[in-house]
Amino acid sequence: MNGAELLLKTAIEAGVEICFANAGTTELYLVAAFDSVQGIRPILGLFEGVCTGAADGYGRMKQRPAMNLLHLGPGLANGIANLHNARRAGTPVLNVIGEHATWHRQYDPPLNMDIGSLAKTVSGWHRVSESAGDIARDTAEAVSATLYGQISTLIVPSDYQWSECTANPYRIPSFRFDEPDSKVIEEAATLIRKSTKPALLLGGRALRLTGLDAAARIQAATGCDLLSVTFPAYHDRGEGLPVLTRLPYFPEQVLPVLAGYDSVVLAGATEPVSSFGYPGVSSRFLKEEQTRIRIDGAQQDPADALSALADMVVSPFSPSRRSKDPVLARLELPAVPSGTLDPKKLCAVIAALQPEDCIVVDEGICSSFWYQMLAPTLRRHSYLTLTGGSIGMGMPCALGAALACPERKVINIQADGSAMYTLQALWTQAHTQADVVTLICSNRKYFTIEFECRRAGCIPGADAMDLIGIDHPPVDWVRLGRGMGVRAVSVATAEELASELKSALKESGPHLIEVVI
Amino acid sequence: MNGAELLLKTAIEAGVEICFANAGTTELYLVAAFDSVQGIRPILGLFEGVCTGAADGYGRMKQRPAMNLLHLGPGLANGIANLHNARRAGTPVLNVIGEHATWHRQYDPPLNMDIGSLAKTVSGWHRVSESAGDIARDTAEAVSATLYGQISTLIVPSDYQWSECTANPYRIPSFRFDEPDSKVIEEAATLIRKSTKPALLLGGRALRLTGLDAAARIQAATGCDLLSVTFPAYHDRGEGLPVLTRLPYFPEQVLPVLAGYDSVVLAGATEPVSSFGYPGVSSRFLKEEQTRIRIDGAQQDPADALSALADMVVSPFSPSRRSKDPVLARLELPAVPSGTLDPKKLCAVIAALQPEDCIVVDEGICSSFWYQMLAPTLRRHSYLTLTGGSIGMGMPCALGAALACPERKVINIQADGSAMYTLQALWTQAHTQADVVTLICSNRKYFTIEFECRRAGCIPGADAMDLIGIDHPPVDWVRLGRGMGVRAVSVATAEELASELKSALKESGPHLIEVVI
Repeated sequence: MNGAELLLKTAIEAGVEICFANAGTTELYLVAAFDSVQGIRPILGLFEGVCTGAADGYGRMKQRPAMNLLHLGPGLANGIANLHNARRAGTPVLNVIGEHATWHRQYDPPLNMDIGSLAKTVSGWHRVSESAGDIARDTAEAVSATLYGQISTLIVPSDYQWSECTANPYRIPSFRFDEPDSKVIEEAATLIRKSTKPALLLGGRALRLTGLDAAARIQAATGCDLLSVTFPAYHDRGEGLPVLTRLPYFPEQVLPVLAGYDSVVLAGATEPVSSFGYPGVSSRFLKEEQTRIRIDGAQQDPADALSALADMVVSPFSPSRRSKDPVLARLELPAVPSGTLDPKKLCAVIAALQPEDCIVVDEGICSSFWYQMLAPTLRRHSYLTLTGGSIGMGMPCALGAALACPERKVINIQADGSAMYTLQALWTQAHTQADVVTLICSNRKYFTIEFECRRAGCIPGADAMDLIGIDHPPVDWVRLGRGMGVRAVSVATAEELASELKSALKESGPHLIEVVI
Repeated sequence: MNGAELLLKTAIEAGVEICFANAGTTELYLVAAFDSVQGIRPILGLFEGVCTGAADGYGRMKQRPAMNLLHLGPGLANGIANLHNARRAGTPVLNVIGEHATWHRQYDPPLNMDIGSLAKTVSGWHRVSESAGDIARDTAEAVSATLYGQISTLIVPSDYQWSECTANPYRIPSFRFDEPDSKVIEEAATLIRKSTKPALLLGGRALRLTGLDAAARIQAATGCDLLSVTFPAYHDRGEGLPVLTRLPYFPEQVLPVLAGYDSVVLAGATEPVSSFGYPGVSSRFLKEEQTRIRIDGAQQDPADALSALADMVVSPFSPSRRSKDPVLARLELPAVPSGTLDPKKLCAVIAALQPEDCIVVDEGICSSFWYQMLAPTLRRHSYLTLTGGSIGMGMPCALGAALACPERKVINIQADGSAMYTLQALWTQAHTQADVVTLICSNRKYFTIEFECRRAGCIPGADAMDLIGIDHPPVDWVRLGRGMGVRAVSVATAEELASELKSALKESGPHLIEVVI
């Protein structure tokens, strides 16, 4: 057995089932090892941002890591933008990067780079293997480190991949999150009890079923409001689940939402701050006098902390203010609109037609604003968003989610400018026949930048608009989709969209619908 | 005047004429400044790898920097692969990256990253501006640092961009390379004189007209052989210019080429080493007993060093071995072949038809091998290659070269797997109506990896081939090209290729020809 085979065997033992890859000469023996070691599915991405974005989508759904196999520094660099999103999402991801042979690197061959400096910008754990025999331990530790919701990057010199070694596959130690801190939970219970108007702000794993169930019990017992972060990594939502108020994006929208609370309990979320600094605007959304407490620590599951808090506030010995049944969403769907499409109608069509238990990946940016309004009462769905603001996440994330959950439909609400960043994902969607319907919101501009300009009191002139408009020439998404092997159509009315979306959802395999808005 | 305007004004003063950009909220005031400050052309790229690759192509042609305007850490990360190529090419490039407002960054907003760690992997110079007033000095120093053939990265917090400031634009100090080191030149002259079989290995700026002229004089005076590096950043080549032997790629091909020389004089080139380490193969191509000397230093122009060396060896007082007229290439074109295309015929068609004074960008990888054989005697052209091995360079590099030299035709010999990395470049080619003919060498696989596998004695099985083949589904480059607004056709015979290439070269604006091989 060589080091490359040892790596794959150990990863498989540790529960890794899929590898998104774009390999080169320094990963040659790992490529070959897929033939000799069975149990991990190799999936080719035609650009590394596709691999890392797919690993993010996969990890969000499975809560176990996919592996990325990337080529040296440039391969990792190409994947960093979506790894940044994965880091912000708390997604477990295992990166394996080939490095030049140990005795070769000193000659600074053309592809030589400082891989470590790249790796540390996104990785909670990173290491360069120091022998072929170490690869088993390194791989096991790398996978283990991901399970707390972070990225591990293992850099493996090519000579260790091809060296024969006798090390047995190393078994990953059994994983569990740390227990919640009971003092902190008590403190939070006391805070809610004392507050006139408390809120619970949920993010991370708190937005999965167990966390939401606990949050609903806390709400019923204490009357607190339930809020969600602006960009959840994963949110179980819709009929039968608690209704959360999503924090809006701009400071002037967030401040009124938060203004009334005298305390905010954070679970899976940090204190809310503005995405960007604006002249004369505070970065922080909570005032000094608004008490806040975070109930989960770095290696704890916020759902456990919420459950502990729920048990405490609903206890018969606790002087809970109110004690009702949890308030859960009842199904409420918008009517399917008609006529020429705009973002509002686009969102209504999706909202009305999305099937039970689908996965909605939202990189709609400005175009999916209205969908947020409708979402809490729709058919139940898992909702994945752009956590790190690094555009080009939607199409690969949808791919990864579809491969993680082949029995579920994936709908990707996708801004056109962002789609263009990683459009190569469509090829792997076709290659794997992933069940993804991509709705390209084709407004043919970077609308956010134009909007931010106007918001800053500046009307962009011709030169500034040269950096905003993507209409000259207009991108033809039907051709691009078909060029990658994906069935693609373009629609301009709500009726056409409804009809095409229905038929795309009925068929299997990837579809692209260009929605001209 | 605000900091953003100050930055653009200073860059213009320093000779920057073009900016490839994909900006976001932290670069908003720089976007707006393009309206108020005239003299720098903003060009939108729909992915940052397009911007940085175009800046590389532009800089190779102009020997002055283009500016890249990129959004925070993810924007820089997306551009790193092509910046790596630019670094290896010694291309002057100015990166400007927006950063969060100084008082905002401490709150770790979603897009916050360690930009410095990313920047240092590719930059010879990098700095974070410390006030709005400093921006003029910082920009001037950044541009100045590029002129030695390196990348400068200036990180500008957004509050300094919007702050009003009174600093006058800072004038860039006049630039010149350091003088050659006369002792080293003398040493090299003595070495050549003493050698039985000397060679001159040229790279970097040594492959431009002045350097080549000096090299030809040295050859005529001393009988030394002329070699070029495997992957030149820029090479003036063809009729009337000296014929150089290009060092091949694989060790087993290079070693026989170099074996006979007892001395090698390096100009603009480091000692040749293998691109990758292979089991049992030496990284270095020169043996201990082969004397080598590099005649240019880090801040010197190798062309100056060659001129000094030429003056020394052709001096009447110098005991030069021979003294003939320089041997220069006479035009010799292959016949246009016929029948079903293969890589050899593809190369012959290009070689036969490429127009006088064109620019040839070669990211053909395996498919352009035969072109190298024919190139020295073709119509005169500038030749740009993949210097850093980071694929996805060709299409943006061709775009940048075309914008730098709008009076010249650009032919891009482009491997399909590599093309897919930065296919968004086609949109900017259409947007700017750049005069580029892209020849997609469509073999529908990562041929190099398959070849390397077989070379390592391993025949890839089904799982390994899953990471090599890009034929399922086949990529339809005609649709992709047209989807981006570029005229596109597909050809399967040499006659069709010749006919389509001729007509594409006659028309202006971008064309794509998919060559099925």
